[in-house]
Amino acid sequence: MAAEIVNPRTGTDSAHAVNGADGTEGAFPIDPVFALHRGGKMEVTSTVPVRDADDLSLAYTPGVAEVCTAIANKPELVHDYTWKSQVVAVVTDGTAVLGLGDIGPEASLPVMEGKAILFKQFGGVDAVPIALACTDVDEIVETVVRLAPSFGGVNLEDISAPRCFEIENRLKERLDIPVFHDDQHGTAVVTLAALRNSCTLTGRSLGDLRAVISGAGAAGVAIAKILIEAGIGDVAVTDRKGVVHAGRDDLNPVKRELASYTNKAGLSGSLEDALDGADVFIGVSGGTVPESAVATMAAGAFVFAMANPTPEIHPEVAHKYAAVVATGRSDFPNQINNVLAFPGIFAGALQVRASAITEGMKIAAAEALAAVVADELSADRVIPSPFDPRVAPAVTAAVAAAARAEGVARR
Amino acid sequence: MAAEIVNPRTGTDSAHAVNGADGTEGAFPIDPVFALHRGGKMEVTSTVPVRDADDLSLAYTPGVAEVCTAIANKPELVHDYTWKSQVVAVVTDGTAVLGLGDIGPEASLPVMEGKAILFKQFGGVDAVPIALACTDVDEIVETVVRLAPSFGGVNLEDISAPRCFEIENRLKERLDIPVFHDDQHGTAVVTLAALRNSCTLTGRSLGDLRAVISGAGAAGVAIAKILIEAGIGDVAVTDRKGVVHAGRDDLNPVKRELASYTNKAGLSGSLEDALDGADVFIGVSGGTVPESAVATMAAGAFVFAMANPTPEIHPEVAHKYAAVVATGRSDFPNQINNVLAFPGIFAGALQVRASAITEGMKIAAAEALAAVVADELSADRVIPSPFDPRVAPAVTAAVAAAARAEGVARR
Repeated sequence: MAAEIVNPRTGTDSAHAVNGADGTEGAFPIDPVFALHRGGKMEVTSTVPVRDADDLSLAYTPGVAEVCTAIANKPELVHDYTWKSQVVAVVTDGTAVLGLGDIGPEASLPVMEGKAILFKQFGGVDAVPIALACTDVDEIVETVVRLAPSFGGVNLEDISAPRCFEIENRLKERLDIPVFHDDQHGTAVVTLAALRNSCTLTGRSLGDLRAVISGAGAAGVAIAKILIEAGIGDVAVTDRKGVVHAGRDDLNPVKRELASYTNKAGLSGSLEDALDGADVFIGVSGGTVPESAVATMAAGAFVFAMANPTPEIHPEVAHKYAAVVATGRSDFPNQINNVLAFPGIFAGALQVRASAITEGMKIAAAEALAAVVADELSADRVIPSPFDPRVAPAVTAAVAAAARAEGVARR
Repeated sequence: MAAEIVNPRTGTDSAHAVNGADGTEGAFPIDPVFALHRGGKMEVTSTVPVRDADDLSLAYTPGVAEVCTAIANKPELVHDYTWKSQVVAVVTDGTAVLGLGDIGPEASLPVMEGKAILFKQFGGVDAVPIALACTDVDEIVETVVRLAPSFGGVNLEDISAPRCFEIENRLKERLDIPVFHDDQHGTAVVTLAALRNSCTLTGRSLGDLRAVISGAGAAGVAIAKILIEAGIGDVAVTDRKGVVHAGRDDLNPVKRELASYTNKAGLSGSLEDALDGADVFIGVSGGTVPESAVATMAAGAFVFAMANPTPEIHPEVAHKYAAVVATGRSDFPNQINNVLAFPGIFAGALQVRASAITEGMKIAAAEALAAVVADELSADRVIPSPFDPRVAPAVTAAVAAAARAEGVARR
C-alpha cells in the first residue's frame, strides 16, 4: 500500500524518512500507519474544467465577475454558486486530541484530516481542517466568526471541557450556520440510538431506566442532556470525585448546571455506589470500572463501555451481567462510533441550508440510526456498522426533515 | 456543459434556479457562467482508501494517534505526515475584488475558488478559500496567525491598498511560512519577465530604461519595487493626482515611502507629462491614457496596458508608437496574467518548505518565466501563454533553487 499513497510533491527521498513507529529514522520495517500518512490524506480538486482560455474565462476572469456581482446583489446566492453550502470547517485548538490530551494544533492535524475524509466518504460533505494557534475562548470564538463566510457549517473537534461548552454556545448565538461539537453530540446521538434499540430488543422503555454515566466531560454532559431530552427515567453523571450532585462545593459552572437537571434519585458517593441497581452504564471517562460494581447492576442491564482503546470493563466480563454490551472498538460487536452520526447530520443540515442543528434534529438522527437495524436486532446488533451503506442516507433524510419541521431550514 | 457540472448535492431543482445573467430567475437561455458555477467549483477528496475497518484503523483511530504523537514529539514531522506543506490559504476580506471593489467576503468567494483551482491545475498546489468577515488590519493579521498551523502558505488576495501592504508585512514578521500578496507580487513578477524579454528582443538594457507606472495601488507599488530591485534605470509612479514625488503633501505613508525610492528624474506633473520621452508605460490603474501621450514616448517604447477588461490604450493604437505591446487580456498577444507566476512560486516554495518568499525568489521566478520563450521571442511573444506546460515546472524549479540560495529553504 505504501507505494500507492506516496505523494508526488513530497517524494520518497525525504530527509525525514520515517521507519520507526516513533517517527524517527530507524532500521525497522516501514510502519503502515506512517506510510499511509506521508504527504497527508486529502487534496482539493476542481469540479470544473480548466483546459483552455475559454474555460478560464468562465471559471475565472472575466466571467466570474458576473457571479460575484449577483451574490453582492442577492447574498443568499452564495449557497448556489460557491461550495459554501457543501463545506464544513473542522475546527480544533488541539487541547483534547483523542486520549492524547493537549498536544497542540499541528499534532492534531492528522485527526482533523481523518475527520475531513470521513465527512466526504460517509456524507459526501467537503471538510477542511482548521487547527488554531490559540486556546483562549474569546479568541477562538472571534476567529471562527471571522472564518464563517467561507463555510456552510462548523464542526468543533477535540477542544477540552469545559471550554468546549462555552465556545459552542457562543458560536451558535453568533452564527447562522450549523455549529456542532462532535465530541459531545455525535457521541450522544449514537449512544441514544444504541440505547433505544437495546430497549426495543429487551422490551423495556427509556422512561423506566436509571442510567449512570462515568465521565463529566464533553461526551458525558451531552449524553446526559440527550437522554433527558429523550425521556430517560433518571441519569446520574460521575467524575473523578464521584456522583455530580448539588451538594458538592467543587463543581465548575457546567457541572453545577449538570447537577441541577440530573440525578433525580439524589445519589451521592462513588461510581460504584451509583451503579448499585442501575439499569445502564455508559463509560466515557477513559477510566475503569470493577467487575464487582457491574455485578451489582439491575438484571438485564446495558453496559456501554466506550473508553478507547481500553474499555472501562472488558466486554466478555460485562456480558456475564449485562443483556447488551457496546464499546468504542471496531473489534467487538456494537461499536459506538461517531462516524455513524456526524456525516449524515451535516449532510442533512447542509441539504436544507439549516441555520442550526437543533435538539430535535439530533433526536431524529438517533431514531433514524436505530431504525436502520430495527429488523435485525440482536444483543450483538443494537447499532449498525459504520460501513453499513444505509446509515448516512437515513440520517441525512431524517435530519433534513427535522430541520424543516423545526423551522430552521432555509430551502 | 451544464449537465456535467451540476452538483449532486445541490441538484437541479433549486428554488434559486438562475437563468438570467443578473442572478435572478428569468426566461433567458441558461448563462454558461452561472451554469458552471452551480454548486461551486471545487471539492475535497481523500488520497487514501477508507473502504473498511482496517483502512479506518490506519487513517483514523487508533492508528492516527501514532502520527499525532510523533508530531507532538518532533514538530517538523507535520510537514511529512499531513497536507500542511501542500496547502495554501487563499485569504481575502473582499474589499478589492477584481474591478468590483468592496463587495464583501461572500461575494468574493467565486474568485477565491477560481484562484484555488488555478493553484491546483497549474501548480499542483492545494488551496482553500478563506474569505474573512473582518476588514480591520489587526483583526485580519491575528486571524491569519491563528489559522497558520493548518497551512503551508498564505496567498493574500483582493485586499484593498494601502491596508494590504501593512497586512502582508506584519504577517511576514509573524509567520514562518510563505506569505504572498498576489495582486502585488504576482503581477510584478510577470511584468518583469515581459520587460526582460522586451529588452532582449530589442537589444536594450533594463538599466537604460525610464518607466512610468500608472497606478499606485497594490500592483503599481510592487512593480516599482521589483523593477528597482532588477536594476531599472528610473521609474516614476502616478496616481490620480499625477506623479508621486516627495514634494506632495497629500501622500499616505506607503506613497511617501514610494516617493523616496522612485522618480530619480525628479518629475512632477501629470501622467501625460511623465510619459514624454519615457521608454516604458505600465498601466495598472484601470484608467485610460490618451494616444497623444503615448505618441510622446521615446522611440521603440514598451506599452503594457494591463487594465481589465479595457486596456488603458487599445493595443492596435499603442502599436503605432511602441515596439512591444502587452495587455491583461487573453484575446490579445502578450497577456500579463498572474497565473503564470503564483502556482509555480508557491509550488517551489512549498517543495523546499521555504520559510518565506524573498525578493530573490521573485526575481528568479521572473527570469525563469522569461526564459521559457527565450528561443521564440517576437514582439507578440515576450511572455508565454498561461497554458504553456513549460511554465509552472520552470518557475517551480527556479524558486526552489533561489530559496536554497537565499537560505530560507528548510529541506
